[in-house]
Amino acid sequence: MGADRGPEEIIRGAIQAAASESLEVVLVGPQAQVEAIVDAELRKTPAARGRVSIANATEIVGMTDQPSVVARGKRNSSIVVGLNLIKSGAADAFVSAGNSGAVMAAALFTLGRIKGIERPAIGTIFPTLSGKTLLIDMGANVDCKPVWLLQFAQMGAAYMERLFAIQRPRVALLSNGEEESKGSQLTQDSYKLLKTSGLNFVGNLEGKDIPRCTAHVLVTDGFTGNVMVKLSEGVGELIVGFLKEAIGRHWYLKLGALLLSPAFHEIARRVDYAEYGGAPLLGVNGVVVIAHGRSSAKAIKNAVRIAAQAYNEGLVPAISGQDLSPQPIEQAAP
Amino acid sequence: MGADRGPEEIIRGAIQAAASESLEVVLVGPQAQVEAIVDAELRKTPAARGRVSIANATEIVGMTDQPSVVARGKRNSSIVVGLNLIKSGAADAFVSAGNSGAVMAAALFTLGRIKGIERPAIGTIFPTLSGKTLLIDMGANVDCKPVWLLQFAQMGAAYMERLFAIQRPRVALLSNGEEESKGSQLTQDSYKLLKTSGLNFVGNLEGKDIPRCTAHVLVTDGFTGNVMVKLSEGVGELIVGFLKEAIGRHWYLKLGALLLSPAFHEIARRVDYAEYGGAPLLGVNGVVVIAHGRSSAKAIKNAVRIAAQAYNEGLVPAISGQDLSPQPIEQAAP
Repeated sequence: MGADRGPEEIIRGAIQAAASESLEVVLVGPQAQVEAIVDAELRKTPAARGRVSIANATEIVGMTDQPSVVARGKRNSSIVVGLNLIKSGAADAFVSAGNSGAVMAAALFTLGRIKGIERPAIGTIFPTLSGKTLLIDMGANVDCKPVWLLQFAQMGAAYMERLFAIQRPRVALLSNGEEESKGSQLTQDSYKLLKTSGLNFVGNLEGKDIPRCTAHVLVTDGFTGNVMVKLSEGVGELIVGFLKEAIGRHWYLKLGALLLSPAFHEIARRVDYAEYGGAPLLGVNGVVVIAHGRSSAKAIKNAVRIAAQAYNEGLVPAISGQDLSPQPIEQAAP
Repeated sequence: MGADRGPEEIIRGAIQAAASESLEVVLVGPQAQVEAIVDAELRKTPAARGRVSIANATEIVGMTDQPSVVARGKRNSSIVVGLNLIKSGAADAFVSAGNSGAVMAAALFTLGRIKGIERPAIGTIFPTLSGKTLLIDMGANVDCKPVWLLQFAQMGAAYMERLFAIQRPRVALLSNGEEESKGSQLTQDSYKLLKTSGLNFVGNLEGKDIPRCTAHVLVTDGFTGNVMVKLSEGVGELIVGFLKEAIGRHWYLKLGALLLSPAFHEIARRVDYAEYGGAPLLGVNGVVVIAHGRSSAKAIKNAVRIAAQAYNEGLVPAISGQDLSPQPIEQAAP
């Protein structure tokens, strides 16, 4: 109910996923309202018939609700009801395009952390030329400790291994220079932990290298990760804004833009979050995927697909099975 | 000598500035080598004759030299010789496209800090639709204290006031959310200082809002600032890379790109660092402008212009004259 485009878009995407991915979806929300939309959508997507059920949730979480209040207080909200379905085993994975802070808080409160994980984190596929880099953390933890960044790397590597079948994913650390000596205290200390972690750690990566980046996991704190994701969105918009201003000046520029529009659409598709579905919340004891508040039906369909895949590929057991403690750091020679 | 494109490009830009801005330039470097290039360039730009002199500096600083070693040890390098010209009053402002860490360290060592300033910082004009936002710090200080961010804001405001004649520049703080309660501990504490600073503080700004941002100064720590600048460069390259891949597929896409090329050039110009010259090192006791290592003659010319303007408009006295201590913070009502 809390998503920017309202419940129709969400329900449509979930029903499309049920049809195309051969899975069962439980829609969590106010029974009567959801039922009416489901009936209409099933007429358009009859292949999903028999695969859709509804779990009633009467309370609504808004984008301004305090996460901790939702987690503990709104027991009949779709977020809490949905997460309880995972906890009880009635469902295998949870997707939400609602208040992401509330989803995180409620997931922690309801499902708890995977043993050994100090802080759950949010990963997101960051657009690159190769298109397969998971940026983690994109905003769950603004102030981080080195061991958290190590664990983000471990969880991110497990995700890329399970979801994209990548053997020994390459892990990089975001910094302001390539050398081990570069970076904030946090990145320098995290570098030391990553180097001896047994992960396939390829060193520091700078912002300018991200487009050509061949790392599968890019680790950073949630403050920087959040700024990066939002800034990239902003820079894309800035370039589109500049282009629109420039095009207005001559007819041949307009013609050029018209001819190029398939290329622009292709670029838009390659940087579109909807293609990647949602962002996994890694480290909680269950599969939780956070979709963008603006999610289209297509984005929701992809988020549901990702969530099902994460469950089927055993993501949570894979993270639980890792040795998540930092390795002893070798002393530098004096 | 240490710039990516070698000394010719630097000397050409400086001589063009001497001609077009009616100022005198002192070129600092190995006498004979610089003289030969100057002779050749003055034949192309005769208007600069009588405005160009050379200060001999025999040592060369490479991009991998340790900043502190250069500052204290390479007394005959162009960086140290040039900064001593400022200190002695023989020159009014210093521009370098060399090792920026070494420039910072040597400027601190030679010129010292402006009284009251705890840490110098580097500002840079960040591309926005309005084109006039100074991002500070872009990399001088990776781990910051709140009072440093306050001072970055004060120095940045003085810069925008003097260089762009903006009355009471609007100052924003980079964070991961608009509300005062959002952000890392550093940004939350800095917010409190900025709110009571007497500056024209407009609150938190998120990465996605930067393109449409109307703030004149955007404050952040040097780690995040550095990532932002480099990531923006990277995202621009990514979009160009996507476009090139897409265009190769059809003749009409190539034609469209050809027709649109004036618009692409205009965008490239609007996001080109060379248009803005260099990045001011604010907080040291003298005018120091750090140019990009890849600087073209045009970038150097603009950096020299900016440096002369900063001196003529009294930037250093303006920063010195500010009350740079934090104001007492009001206690929140219980």
